[in-house]
Amino acid sequence: MNNLNYLTGATEVSYHCWLQYTKIEDEALVEHYQRYCQSLLVLGKSTIIESAVSELQKGLHSYLGSKPSIATQEINSAAIILGTADKVNNPIVNNELIDKLNDDGYIIKSVNENDRNILYLVGKSDIGVLYAAFHLLRLMASRKMVDNLSIIENPRNQFRMINQWDNMDGSIERGYSGQSIFYTDNQFSGDWERIKDYARLLSSVGINAISINNVNVFKVETNLITEQFLPDVAKTADIFRAYGIKTFLSINYASPIEVGKLETADPLNPEVEKWWQQKTKEIYSYIPDFGGFVVKADSEHRPGPFSYNRNHADGANVLAKALQPFGGVVIWRCFVYNCLQDWRDRSIDRAKAAYDNFKPLDGKFLDNVILQIKNGPMDFQVREPVSPLFGAMSETNQLIEFQVAQEYTGQQIDLCYLVPQWKEVLDFDTYAKGKQSEVKNIVDGSLFNFKYSGIAAVSNIGNDTNWTGNTLAQANLYGYGRLIWNPELSAEEIAEEWVEATFGHKQHVKEIILNMLMQSWPIYENYTAPLGVGWMINPGHHYGPNIDGYEYSVWGTYHFADHDGIGVDRTIATGTGYTGQYFRENADYYESLETCPDELLLFFHHVPYTYRLHSGKTVIQHIYDTHFEGVEQVKQLREMFTRLEKDLDKAIYANVLDRLERQLANAKEWRDKINTYFYRKSGINDEKNRMIY
Amino acid sequence: MNNLNYLTGATEVSYHCWLQYTKIEDEALVEHYQRYCQSLLVLGKSTIIESAVSELQKGLHSYLGSKPSIATQEINSAAIILGTADKVNNPIVNNELIDKLNDDGYIIKSVNENDRNILYLVGKSDIGVLYAAFHLLRLMASRKMVDNLSIIENPRNQFRMINQWDNMDGSIERGYSGQSIFYTDNQFSGDWERIKDYARLLSSVGINAISINNVNVFKVETNLITEQFLPDVAKTADIFRAYGIKTFLSINYASPIEVGKLETADPLNPEVEKWWQQKTKEIYSYIPDFGGFVVKADSEHRPGPFSYNRNHADGANVLAKALQPFGGVVIWRCFVYNCLQDWRDRSIDRAKAAYDNFKPLDGKFLDNVILQIKNGPMDFQVREPVSPLFGAMSETNQLIEFQVAQEYTGQQIDLCYLVPQWKEVLDFDTYAKGKQSEVKNIVDGSLFNFKYSGIAAVSNIGNDTNWTGNTLAQANLYGYGRLIWNPELSAEEIAEEWVEATFGHKQHVKEIILNMLMQSWPIYENYTAPLGVGWMINPGHHYGPNIDGYEYSVWGTYHFADHDGIGVDRTIATGTGYTGQYFRENADYYESLETCPDELLLFFHHVPYTYRLHSGKTVIQHIYDTHFEGVEQVKQLREMFTRLEKDLDKAIYANVLDRLERQLANAKEWRDKINTYFYRKSGINDEKNRMIY
Repeated sequence: MNNLNYLTGATEVSYHCWLQYTKIEDEALVEHYQRYCQSLLVLGKSTIIESAVSELQKGLHSYLGSKPSIATQEINSAAIILGTADKVNNPIVNNELIDKLNDDGYIIKSVNENDRNILYLVGKSDIGVLYAAFHLLRLMASRKMVDNLSIIENPRNQFRMINQWDNMDGSIERGYSGQSIFYTDNQFSGDWERIKDYARLLSSVGINAISINNVNVFKVETNLITEQFLPDVAKTADIFRAYGIKTFLSINYASPIEVGKLETADPLNPEVEKWWQQKTKEIYSYIPDFGGFVVKADSEHRPGPFSYNRNHADGANVLAKALQPFGGVVIWRCFVYNCLQDWRDRSIDRAKAAYDNFKPLDGKFLDNVILQIKNGPMDFQVREPVSPLFGAMSETNQLIEFQVAQEYTGQQIDLCYLVPQWKEVLDFDTYAKGKQSEVKNIVDGSLFNFKYSGIAAVSNIGNDTNWTGNTLAQANLYGYGRLIWNPELSAEEIAEEWVEATFGHKQHVKEIILNMLMQSWPIYENYTAPLGVGWMINPGHHYGPNIDGYEYSVWGTYHFADHDGIGVDRTIATGTGYTGQYFRENADYYESLETCPDELLLFFHHVPYTYRLHSGKTVIQHIYDTHFEGVEQVKQLREMFTRLEKDLDKAIYANVLDRLERQLANAKEWRDKINTYFYRKSGINDEKNRMIY
Repeated sequence: MNNLNYLTGATEVSYHCWLQYTKIEDEALVEHYQRYCQSLLVLGKSTIIESAVSELQKGLHSYLGSKPSIATQEINSAAIILGTADKVNNPIVNNELIDKLNDDGYIIKSVNENDRNILYLVGKSDIGVLYAAFHLLRLMASRKMVDNLSIIENPRNQFRMINQWDNMDGSIERGYSGQSIFYTDNQFSGDWERIKDYARLLSSVGINAISINNVNVFKVETNLITEQFLPDVAKTADIFRAYGIKTFLSINYASPIEVGKLETADPLNPEVEKWWQQKTKEIYSYIPDFGGFVVKADSEHRPGPFSYNRNHADGANVLAKALQPFGGVVIWRCFVYNCLQDWRDRSIDRAKAAYDNFKPLDGKFLDNVILQIKNGPMDFQVREPVSPLFGAMSETNQLIEFQVAQEYTGQQIDLCYLVPQWKEVLDFDTYAKGKQSEVKNIVDGSLFNFKYSGIAAVSNIGNDTNWTGNTLAQANLYGYGRLIWNPELSAEEIAEEWVEATFGHKQHVKEIILNMLMQSWPIYENYTAPLGVGWMINPGHHYGPNIDGYEYSVWGTYHFADHDGIGVDRTIATGTGYTGQYFRENADYYESLETCPDELLLFFHHVPYTYRLHSGKTVIQHIYDTHFEGVEQVKQLREMFTRLEKDLDKAIYANVLDRLERQLANAKEWRDKINTYFYRKSGINDEKNRMIY
């Protein structure tokens, strides 16, 4: 099945992910494509355009069996003409069209001129050209005809970012796919080819920024901004640059002390300010288009401005000043809360922390600071509400942060296609400026006219051959890129594209995998923590059930289940007042038991086990039913998948089947522990008398 | 305060433990002792007698300010005459007296002959001489007069053993006092002086056997029985031998494979049998009086005979055969249970495992095999019943195993004087041969006339200056030795001896510390797991509360608390049938709610929270009351102790106060988590309306 021996050292199909470029067997279709693909006319010159040409050559060769010839001057044969708008401008690709493009946008147009077929791939700038090339290859992956194309594509979001949580010892914080591809033994791994293939994968779905080290910056990684490692950072940046991806570093806020040997890292200290300026200058001498710094400060034991009685704005601005002359930005994470909470103290609510910490600072940040806000107020749970910070800071650049890595959603053992979750978040209306103040309109910068904005996410890849542990988890990386390019795409559309590009076109393969993906999030939700309450997982590694695992701990993540009921009262009326952080419409919606949706009921309210949901079920019966159902659904997933044994690559089949078996075991653990826990606590029998221990 | 600069490199008082030999300030008393101590007449010669002489010289010098002269021939001055019975035999120390001694026994007699004071220290063999010397020094520690002494002492138990759980990387499994004194960096530490001081401490309380490595024998330690390490083992044995202590090694049951490169460790395989014989011979060539092997097999993932479908008798006997020619023994641990239990399966009861595994093998072990049985059926909990294996195997040598290390009893942070607990166990009547079949009469060998028997315990020492982390935990090591020498001593007597030897003779110091020690076990029980149910601790490290920490796990340690009640039904009538492993009288006693003692109620029965104890309280109110009380009691401990600030060595005072602070924090955690957990689960209010979260 694998005909891609030109690809980097890879002998396994799964390595190529959605860039399989599988040979097209339909001869008529080959002929159709050939009518456009005899040669490539390349207008303009840049490393990014070179990447586009190289990718097209690989892809077309693989699809069609023959490579197009390359031309740089006008030719007469059927051709793909690619280049930037300033080079291509003609009556077909004209100013009227070009004016519709944003910086990263592109046009694809196919025409028949004097019996000569031409396919234009035109970008506003060179990155658009590369995106157009990937777009064409995607169309071919879907076996779409290319006559009469007239496509204008603009990415909706400015920052389309990936955060690697890789440590230099080779481990990955929340990594479920082997070790880091970037580092090993406290050095750069030197596996530049693999990094290049990662750049290809990211660029093919429109990612344009990457931070290459863990937001928790430990001892060795602190030195990434020193001459010890900057040459290798620069080499890495070179690779990503060729694919239109800017490189960022996560920094240790205590660097002035640990690297600079100053006595303080106080952001208002002139020595510290000077140190950051010189350091930043040094970094830019290695990487002229360096993106900037990602900062986790005053969070989960990381150092930050609080040590010096400074606030986050003080903390971020000193870095922003240093980056400003070079066009760099500070990405400042809002994941700040008291992680040494006394569980006895119900006045503290972790959900309120980001808003409480940052909202008062609106307008105080320099304009090259961007706040990076997790999608929810807690931490990437299978279900939580949208963070009330979105829309609450009209004068501060914002990025939303998702987690492609499945830390709390099955760790790439259990199947969980996350695009539907992300879509719900992006479609959530904050009412910040009345109706249609959806999160997607905030993070794309349009609602408040942010200078910088966009979307970031924690990567799910490692050095496993298939990149993502479970091969089906590749869909999340693909889907993340596609969704943030265009949040209006449906989760199904994206999944279908991915299935076709990855597994080809057999109808039942497509149907089954699509079906598995689209069910997977609700299934995972069914057998894990119920009704939005979250957590209930094993502390530390976060896999598998432990209902009281965080209940009496310092982390602020409680469910308060007792003899009579369960849930966290976050209302204004009787609870922590968290609902008051939302704009009126949402505050009312969550505050009232009448309107609060079942799926988030226990996040916002403490109710008796006998409380009746909108669904008509009691809370306790809902818990029992969903947990029994979840296990049956996983059995069905497995059963469905086994029908594909003959259709899939052997290694991929074995890989996914193994994960489904482990998922089933995990789902049973969840079912039995959750059901037993709540049966023991409530004393209420299952209406259907099923086995509870 | 420290006048012991002749002791090994120690500059801190706490290092010397109960061998302080503090200078006697009372001049009349000095004169009294001097009347016997002008010289030492030493009859007989051996390294052990040399140790006795050396210890007496140190002690007398320190107590009295002057060293006695040494003589080996009859002298005329006042003297201590020490030697073995065969050398001393005379009208005063006569055959009638000597016949009352067992192998390790001794006589102390003081007489006035012709105006000459003589103090006889006479052992049946040389170890008795050393014990007599320590006894005299102990009398002086207690400032007792020595006129007209006529003491005959025989240790009640044959094996008086300490198990080190030290690993060669320097760590100690369940160590709470620093690193190993024996090993560091996968080598012997070479700290022979410290090891010698440890031998002195052990010998001073009558310990006569030691196993020097962890019962979990990992990769490096497997090689302790090879030429790589045997020279150092021999050196260690030399040190202990001089104090009458035999050296044992814990072995890896897979040694024939891992060391011998055989393909099997099957005990019935002739190659394996031969390998063990040669290996044993080799060990004895280094250590002619080597004690034998301690074996943890088929337990908690350690290899054993089960891998070859052999039973424990097969497993032990192959080693016993190899040791027999040299007089060595196999100490085979009975801590065998299913540690991969499915918590859903209530038919399995870990408490039954040791009995079920070993009872059927009674009589099948060779006579130099000794089974080492933990005091309770679970694992060194603050409260559990006595293991039903005691008395159940009349034809198999038995050792009881205690844990001086406070794994589950506060980890040498919290104060817990364990002698009262051990006494209860030893005094427990098994009814194996009717009344007066107490555990102490089984493990001393008398009830069933065992060839080998006695008591072993896990050590609590490490390389902290004060040996035991919390200085007051020294009392447990001291008390362990004294109690197993003579189980009829009371816990108070032992504590008083220890306090005087360690802290001197101020009345209020004695009273306060004695009071603290004697209350400490009940206090610890008050604020931890209630009514004998055990566990409820953090998995892994076992410190601090986690009520459901082991509830849904593989370890077989459950409490089954639900909406209505709590406890494990281990009755014959309706439960796991564990009570049936006891002899009739005890089986009936525990089976019936009428007679089952409150303190073990939840170990044997599942009862409603509203069940009324013999104490008159309900179970739930008992839980609340004991947990509130426990914290108040710890506050009192701390308060009492602070009254000693001016009386104690500064470092000791600071050390103990620090631990008491940490104990208080721990007790509060326990109180609040336990109370909240049970309040939430039961929904029943505290009668006294105290703060429950």
